[in-house]
Amino acid sequence: MYRRQPSYNGCLLAETQRDRIDVVLVSPRNPLNIGAAARAMANFGFERLTIVAPFEAHWREAKSAVGAPELLQNARETATLAEAIAEFTFVVGTGTLTYRKPEQPVVPLPALVPFIQQELQGAGRVGIVFGPEKHGLTREDLSYCHLLVEIPTDARQPSMNLGQAVAVCLYELTRGELTRTHPDKTLDSTIEKFQAAGADRKAPSGALDRLSDVVEQTMTGAGYSPQIMQAANRHNLRLLLRRLSWTESDVKHALGLFRRILWRLAHRDR
Amino acid sequence: MYRRQPSYNGCLLAETQRDRIDVVLVSPRNPLNIGAAARAMANFGFERLTIVAPFEAHWREAKSAVGAPELLQNARETATLAEAIAEFTFVVGTGTLTYRKPEQPVVPLPALVPFIQQELQGAGRVGIVFGPEKHGLTREDLSYCHLLVEIPTDARQPSMNLGQAVAVCLYELTRGELTRTHPDKTLDSTIEKFQAAGADRKAPSGALDRLSDVVEQTMTGAGYSPQIMQAANRHNLRLLLRRLSWTESDVKHALGLFRRILWRLAHRDR
Repeated sequence: MYRRQPSYNGCLLAETQRDRIDVVLVSPRNPLNIGAAARAMANFGFERLTIVAPFEAHWREAKSAVGAPELLQNARETATLAEAIAEFTFVVGTGTLTYRKPEQPVVPLPALVPFIQQELQGAGRVGIVFGPEKHGLTREDLSYCHLLVEIPTDARQPSMNLGQAVAVCLYELTRGELTRTHPDKTLDSTIEKFQAAGADRKAPSGALDRLSDVVEQTMTGAGYSPQIMQAANRHNLRLLLRRLSWTESDVKHALGLFRRILWRLAHRDR
Repeated sequence: MYRRQPSYNGCLLAETQRDRIDVVLVSPRNPLNIGAAARAMANFGFERLTIVAPFEAHWREAKSAVGAPELLQNARETATLAEAIAEFTFVVGTGTLTYRKPEQPVVPLPALVPFIQQELQGAGRVGIVFGPEKHGLTREDLSYCHLLVEIPTDARQPSMNLGQAVAVCLYELTRGELTRTHPDKTLDSTIEKFQAAGADRKAPSGALDRLSDVVEQTMTGAGYSPQIMQAANRHNLRLLLRRLSWTESDVKHALGLFRRILWRLAHRDR
C-alpha cells in the first residue's frame, strides 16, 4: 500500500535559496565534463559555478553546456579551493564510496537537504565541491569541508562520471519541490488509479500487442475502421489497452472472443 | 529541526528487484551517451540494458562505459520498441517538461518508486524507457507506456543530457537503500552534532583560514610546531576549526587572542 511521504512537503529547497549555493569543480580535466555540469545546473535551476585550477584553458567554450553557455561564461575561476570557498559558511565535499577513515561527518546524499536547509535559514552560503575525474577530492581538499556527502553507489562500481554526479546531487537538492508543478490532487488520483488496478498477474506488453492485432483485424473485418482511420485507431487502441490494466487471463478471454468474431466475419456467408 | 523521514525505510527497492528492471534506450544517436547510461547503470547496480534501433552500429565499443564494458556487451538490441518491451508488464516512459496533453498518467520522478514496487511485488517485469537525445520519446513511443515519469527540471532549461537523465532516474530508484551502508545510529549522531552547532551566524571559510594562519604562526612562534610537523599540524588545524562550527564573533575573539599571544612572543624579551 502506497502512502504519500511527508518528505514531499518537508524537504523543500526554495528557488531563492539556490542562489546561495555554488557548485565548485576542483581541477576538472575534461571541458566536456565542465559543460555537462553546467547543463545539469541549468536543468535544476542553479546558476553559480566556480572552477578551481582547470586543466584546459578553453573550458568556457565547452559544447556540452547545452542551454547553459551564459552560465559557463559567468563562472568564476580560482587558483585554489581555499580561494573558491572563502566566502562560504558551509562546504560540502562529494564522493562515492571513496572515503577511507573520513575525518569529517559523512551523510548519504538522500539525507543532505536538511543540513543545507539549516545553513540557509541564516545568512550562510553553501558550496558543493566535486573532485577531479580520476581520483576525486584529495585528503587536503576534504579538510576544507564541513560535511562529506556520499552518493550511494554500488560497491562493485562506485566511481561516477563527473557530469552525472553533479546531476544526481542537484536533483537531490531540488526533488522536494513537487508541489509547484504537481498539485497533490493529481498525484493522489494517479495513485488511486494504480491501486485500483489490483494485484492480479498483469499481462506483458507483447500479450497486449497480440490482442491489439486481433482487435484491429476485427475492426477492419467488420468495416468499423476505414483505411484512413486505421493508424489513429491503432494508436488509441494501444493506449486504451494499457489504461485498462489487463491481467493475463483477461487477455486470454478477450483473444478468444475476438478470434471467434473474426472467424465469424470470414464465414458470414455460410 | 530535522526529523528523519520514513522514506528511508519505506521506499526500498531491493537488489534482487533490480534484476527485473530494464533500461531501454530508444534510437540513441551518440554511442558516448549509451556508454554513459551503461556506466550509471553499473553505479547503481542495474544490469539489463536494451538498445532499440541505434543510430551507430558500433555502440558496444563506447569508451564512456567506464567500469561497464560487459554490461554493454551483454545488452540486447532490438529493431522496435514493441519488441524490446514485449515481455514487460509495466513500461515507464521518461521525459522532462515535455509532455503536452499526456494520454497516460504522469508522475514526477520522486513519486515513482511505489508504482514500481507495486509492480515488482508480483512476478512483473519493468522497463524504464528513454527517448533519443534531440526530441525524446515520440507520441507513438509513449503509447506503449503504462505510466509517464517527469524529471522535475527548470522550465527555462528542461532538456537533459541522456546519460545524466539515466543517472538521475536510477539514483531515484535506489536512494531509499540507506540502511545497508549507513546504520541509523551513525546518521542520527551526525544530525545531533549539527543540530548542536546552534543557530548563530557561522564564520565563512576565509575567516577560518585567517584564524588558522594566526594559530599556525603562534604554534611556530611558541616552538610548538617543529618544521617537520608543520604541514600535518596545518592539516589537522583546518579540520579542527571546521568541526567546531565557529561563529563570526568566535573567530573575532580567537583572532584577538592569538594576535595578542603572537605579539607577546615577539616581544617577550622586553
